Amino acid sequence: MLYFLGFPGASALLVPPDGECTVYVGGVNYEQAKAAGKGFNVALFRGGENLMTRIADQAKECQIGRLLVDALNVQNWQALTTDLQGGCKVEVNCSYVQKLRAVKDPAEVGLMRVAGELTSRGMEAAAEAVKAGAKEYEVAAEAEYAMRRRGAGPSAFETIVASGAGSAFPHGGCGDREIRDGDLVVVDIGATYNHYCSDMTRTFVAGKPTAKQQRIYDAVKTAHQSAFQKIRAGVCVADVDAAARNVLKDAGYGEFFVHRVGHNVGLEVHEPPSLNPDSPDLLAAGNVVTDEPGVYISGFGGVRIEDTVLVQKDGCEKLTVGAYSLVP
Amino acid sequence: MLYFLGFPGASALLVPPDGECTVYVGGVNYEQAKAAGKGFNVALFRGGENLMTRIADQAKECQIGRLLVDALNVQNWQALTTDLQGGCKVEVNCSYVQKLRAVKDPAEVGLMRVAGELTSRGMEAAAEAVKAGAKEYEVAAEAEYAMRRRGAGPSAFETIVASGAGSAFPHGGCGDREIRDGDLVVVDIGATYNHYCSDMTRTFVAGKPTAKQQRIYDAVKTAHQSAFQKIRAGVCVADVDAAARNVLKDAGYGEFFVHRVGHNVGLEVHEPPSLNPDSPDLLAAGNVVTDEPGVYISGFGGVRIEDTVLVQKDGCEKLTVGAYSLVP
Repeated sequence: MLYFLGFPGASALLVPPDGECTVYVGGVNYEQAKAAGKGFNVALFRGGENLMTRIADQAKECQIGRLLVDALNVQNWQALTTDLQGGCKVEVNCSYVQKLRAVKDPAEVGLMRVAGELTSRGMEAAAEAVKAGAKEYEVAAEAEYAMRRRGAGPSAFETIVASGAGSAFPHGGCGDREIRDGDLVVVDIGATYNHYCSDMTRTFVAGKPTAKQQRIYDAVKTAHQSAFQKIRAGVCVADVDAAARNVLKDAGYGEFFVHRVGHNVGLEVHEPPSLNPDSPDLLAAGNVVTDEPGVYISGFGGVRIEDTVLVQKDGCEKLTVGAYSLVP
Repeated sequence: MLYFLGFPGASALLVPPDGECTVYVGGVNYEQAKAAGKGFNVALFRGGENLMTRIADQAKECQIGRLLVDALNVQNWQALTTDLQGGCKVEVNCSYVQKLRAVKDPAEVGLMRVAGELTSRGMEAAAEAVKAGAKEYEVAAEAEYAMRRRGAGPSAFETIVASGAGSAFPHGGCGDREIRDGDLVVVDIGATYNHYCSDMTRTFVAGKPTAKQQRIYDAVKTAHQSAFQKIRAGVCVADVDAAARNVLKDAGYGEFFVHRVGHNVGLEVHEPPSLNPDSPDLLAAGNVVTDEPGVYISGFGGVRIEDTVLVQKDGCEKLTVGAYSLVP
């Protein structure tokens, strides 16, 4: 609904074949929806009222014979199909809207470009904050503050600052652990701008990297570059994954790359289509994807390098920009 | 799943009548789940595998005749009921777990107390930052930074800093508007601590309040206090709402209080039961609720005052603490 309407807080949106759309909002968002409203009716639903009944009534009035629903939980689906009394076929299928959202138009790209720039500034602040004695949450605080005070919206996802053995968990979170000399530190951050997300990871060592840390880092960096060089419209996402995965396999780290090479990004940080090894999907110009290979060795630590990348007709462009160096 | 397991990242949790629980995780979270795992099996599911089929197989193996599901979308519900082949009755009902979650145990209260303290510090920083010439996002940046660098997790919700006419929207967001002298500024923030949320709102005027702004503020403050005095175990939530609503009605602002007086708070910032005028629910010791009356006058501005409050046997206790003053 944010994608179609441009403002958050709507409870439902009904798009009939002809005529104006109806946006359903609770009292708490009613005035805001009316103020934002251009080209759609704003319908207030009150506490205690059943939204599904309202939608069913409107669908009947619009003589809708087949209702496509983007997202619905089981309870509401049961209520909606009951309220429609069989007069209308309901299909729940999120892929239609997902396909629209997967290709960004120039205005969306503009917003994602700003989100990427803000995220890059956040990573600079994180690099400065990573040192022995700092706590993981202190690094997160500096990165988020650097983005926010320059105009970023809320973080696109929970900032990850995972240090030491915790860096071996791809979604290692961010706790109160104190970073120690020689620790690997994975920093994964993302600004939003006007609701559009960005996603960027760098891995640092607090202090002097060991030969093993450097070896892993160099392999991940090469894998990241290899995938980047593949990204362009028309390429199969599985081939982008393979470009990174083969580098890591050849370096002996294949079994430690435990996730896909990337995902699309937009109003949500994880959007379909996924860049996974089994997918037949082709990249299209206007997709915005992540390139994020990683190596995670249990008990030792992990390394991930990630940029958000705009897919273009003849190549691609990084929307997040920052140095590739283990030393912050 | 976070409530039962204590760590995020699980895709599903199967609790059989006897024997060990099974936690299903993707590869990206597998090692982390194993590291966190105490008292449950960790099952890896791979890309391309259907999680619902795995769960159905396990349910058959455990001879589960009736499967209660907390949350499920329509596609997964259809897949699960198909995979179970009628051998097992599926009920989707979130109220069982919600009821458990609504009453916080002492350990949870301890975490929410810390979240409340961090939020109170954030509000102090926001009050310092609110002044003519500051942008809304700059106030948010200072509030969030104050919470985060003291150990808070990610914000419990999108920080609201809504100024001028925008303060009349209860969920007014936070943009790049520059605060002007005399503006009402609604600041609604919440820290998390160990995943538990807090929720606090104060309203300020940048500069000297007008008589009308002060009159509205005083009415909201009295409404907030009136609700607070009602909160204790055994009281109907509708009576708490009425305590605030009647004050605002008597002051002539009844029509401008466009939302319920509050909601429960926990691992999510909005949890059931709701404190709304039509609810028959009774408060219980260990509930943590918000007390947040507001007055929103379109084109003029809004005032909301909110604290997070722990319900006790003989009264209640504020978990967020801060001055009540229009002048920051």
